Amino acid sequence: MIAEKMKGLVANNSAIRTMFEEGKLLAAQFGEENVFDFSLGNPSVPAPPEVNQAIIDVVNQEDPTFIHGYMSNAGYDDVRQAVAESLNRRFGTHFSSRNIIMTAGAGMAINILLCALLNPGDEVIAFAPYFMEYNTYVGNYYGKVVAVKPDTSTFMPDLDAFAAAITPKTRAVMVNSPNNPSGVVYPESTLRDIARILTEKSAMCAQPIVLIADEPYRELVYGGVEVPYVTHFYPHTAVCYSYSKSLSLPGERVGYLVVPDEFHDFANVITAATIANRVSGCVNAPSLMQRVIKRCLDLKCDVAAYERNRDLLYEGLRGLGFECIKPEGAFYLFIKSPDPDDLGFIAACKKRRILIVNGTAFACPGYARIAYCVPYERIQRALPAFQEVAQEYGLGQR
Amino acid sequence: MIAEKMKGLVANNSAIRTMFEEGKLLAAQFGEENVFDFSLGNPSVPAPPEVNQAIIDVVNQEDPTFIHGYMSNAGYDDVRQAVAESLNRRFGTHFSSRNIIMTAGAGMAINILLCALLNPGDEVIAFAPYFMEYNTYVGNYYGKVVAVKPDTSTFMPDLDAFAAAITPKTRAVMVNSPNNPSGVVYPESTLRDIARILTEKSAMCAQPIVLIADEPYRELVYGGVEVPYVTHFYPHTAVCYSYSKSLSLPGERVGYLVVPDEFHDFANVITAATIANRVSGCVNAPSLMQRVIKRCLDLKCDVAAYERNRDLLYEGLRGLGFECIKPEGAFYLFIKSPDPDDLGFIAACKKRRILIVNGTAFACPGYARIAYCVPYERIQRALPAFQEVAQEYGLGQR
Repeated sequence: MIAEKMKGLVANNSAIRTMFEEGKLLAAQFGEENVFDFSLGNPSVPAPPEVNQAIIDVVNQEDPTFIHGYMSNAGYDDVRQAVAESLNRRFGTHFSSRNIIMTAGAGMAINILLCALLNPGDEVIAFAPYFMEYNTYVGNYYGKVVAVKPDTSTFMPDLDAFAAAITPKTRAVMVNSPNNPSGVVYPESTLRDIARILTEKSAMCAQPIVLIADEPYRELVYGGVEVPYVTHFYPHTAVCYSYSKSLSLPGERVGYLVVPDEFHDFANVITAATIANRVSGCVNAPSLMQRVIKRCLDLKCDVAAYERNRDLLYEGLRGLGFECIKPEGAFYLFIKSPDPDDLGFIAACKKRRILIVNGTAFACPGYARIAYCVPYERIQRALPAFQEVAQEYGLGQR
Repeated sequence: MIAEKMKGLVANNSAIRTMFEEGKLLAAQFGEENVFDFSLGNPSVPAPPEVNQAIIDVVNQEDPTFIHGYMSNAGYDDVRQAVAESLNRRFGTHFSSRNIIMTAGAGMAINILLCALLNPGDEVIAFAPYFMEYNTYVGNYYGKVVAVKPDTSTFMPDLDAFAAAITPKTRAVMVNSPNNPSGVVYPESTLRDIARILTEKSAMCAQPIVLIADEPYRELVYGGVEVPYVTHFYPHTAVCYSYSKSLSLPGERVGYLVVPDEFHDFANVITAATIANRVSGCVNAPSLMQRVIKRCLDLKCDVAAYERNRDLLYEGLRGLGFECIKPEGAFYLFIKSPDPDDLGFIAACKKRRILIVNGTAFACPGYARIAYCVPYERIQRALPAFQEVAQEYGLGQR
């Protein structure tokens, strides 16, 4: 009965979500404190208390037909202007409301942009390891993701492989920094290299290749690392942002799309993306949350809590002999599988009630993702279980 | 730069939204009280005060990582169960949480269902006049809307034309009762006729034709009219609901999709629709609003206000010699254009600063839609302007 293109998705379902459901079953059986669930990127840190106060204030102070009503499909003008000015203050950009579309999270921002741009058969390049939902997002418009393998010593893009992957069908390139699942942050030099390659290669395409910066983890960085603002390096850059992680509001579905003035064919692209917001059926980003965001633009969740988690987990796993690079941002650690078959490693972990996601689910076999957006105590209690796994694989302690 | 399929949409944009923008400009020029904007279906009645209280209570009483966090893509289990039980109480159905997917409004409910069901080239039948967004929704999945003309004496579906329009490519049929834009409510007999035809004609299709009930206006009916629950008449019926109108929350994007157990291939369809919610980029219906809905299931906005508007407008226009049928539900009146060219009529109205939408925008030329979800005083002040239009066309007063 179902559509052909849904059959594979129904058969496989999402590896991450499946793990989430298994976690709930194990928790019911063994008690929640005895299941070490690191499978899902659901923030463990609550929203800043000012967010809930802002919700109450908006409800008490503003007209209900306004705060719950329709607005332009791009969002409330004043909210978009406030978002633009916040970006300008922080990143030296020159946006105004016309460059911003409020969206139901970064996922919807990516979708309305792809809807605006892609024709069937177009190719979108993604740097492995990458969030596999990109495949379905691009597939929604009958496009195709072309994966570029990483340099696994740094998890930075392999730039020669990138240049070689560009064809006349390449319509866009996705970058995701801080990265899910590796935790790396692209330095300015990497972004300049990507921009240079895109400028050179766009010459063989009918129009400039678009750079899509998927940035839900922008504010989650540790040790003073800077995340360069991508529009500074390449004009045809669109930024997809979400408050899911920075304000711990993933269920609320609020974020935005930025399209700068200098983006090729700006007026048509921003109009098409706005229409895409409408015709998707979503219509607009949730209205009350837009009004709340205007009051919370300069807030952040407790990023230090994630940094403490990272330090405990990274040092702990390295001490047990596991291999991984130190994440500089996001809340994931991408560990090398000590088993040539990463599903074997996942199974060995599950035997100790450790739930993590295999690297193949991020187009990067031989690795696994550990989401450390969890209570600190869960990491503490999980380390002895990880030790058992290390012993099973004969890893040397340091 | 933009996708081929967006070019027409960008060129035309939505007639309704364009009118909305024009209204804002006229209001700036002549003052809001001198512009009679009847163009948009944006509720004029505020949300019941209990909704805002529920928002405050949820924020004060529930854990922030829960109320703002991810949940299953189908929505919170307890919210879905509460929605199911509310339907069962009111309509004698037998739903449980497994039959309900919480969505970002009815528009998203329709989209995830179509995503789950449609293959490129499939046909979806809609009864004119209909909400033209159906064309873009179906087009999102490379399907095609086949319009069936109405019996304009009643604005009920022409059932012979309907039967004749069904082909082996027909995958679904949309019904929208109470109807936007005509305000008619389909009686049980009409639904039984549609079900009978679908059952007969499904025999020539590879699988049962699906009936999609788009019901954002279910609670907005006048004079005690009943809106039969469509799943009682045909097993392969999915219901797309929104709280946009019943609770005056259109900007919040919250509603649901119902797929009954007896729907053909139920398990795959509900799974595919749940996955579609995720891969659309929307992921889930906004979380806080789901929790609020659970506390507000039995509330309604002030429907009597819309009924007073309907009575004043309908009696006023009839008195001026305009032709229209009396709406029994929703908040629209579908008026016959006194001008053979309905755009001429729209222009004559706009000259008196009356903003309404032409019938062609609902696949029904020769008519126009007046949205009476406006302050009562706007209708009072607009009637003299309508009188000038009536005089221009030489309509006889009664």
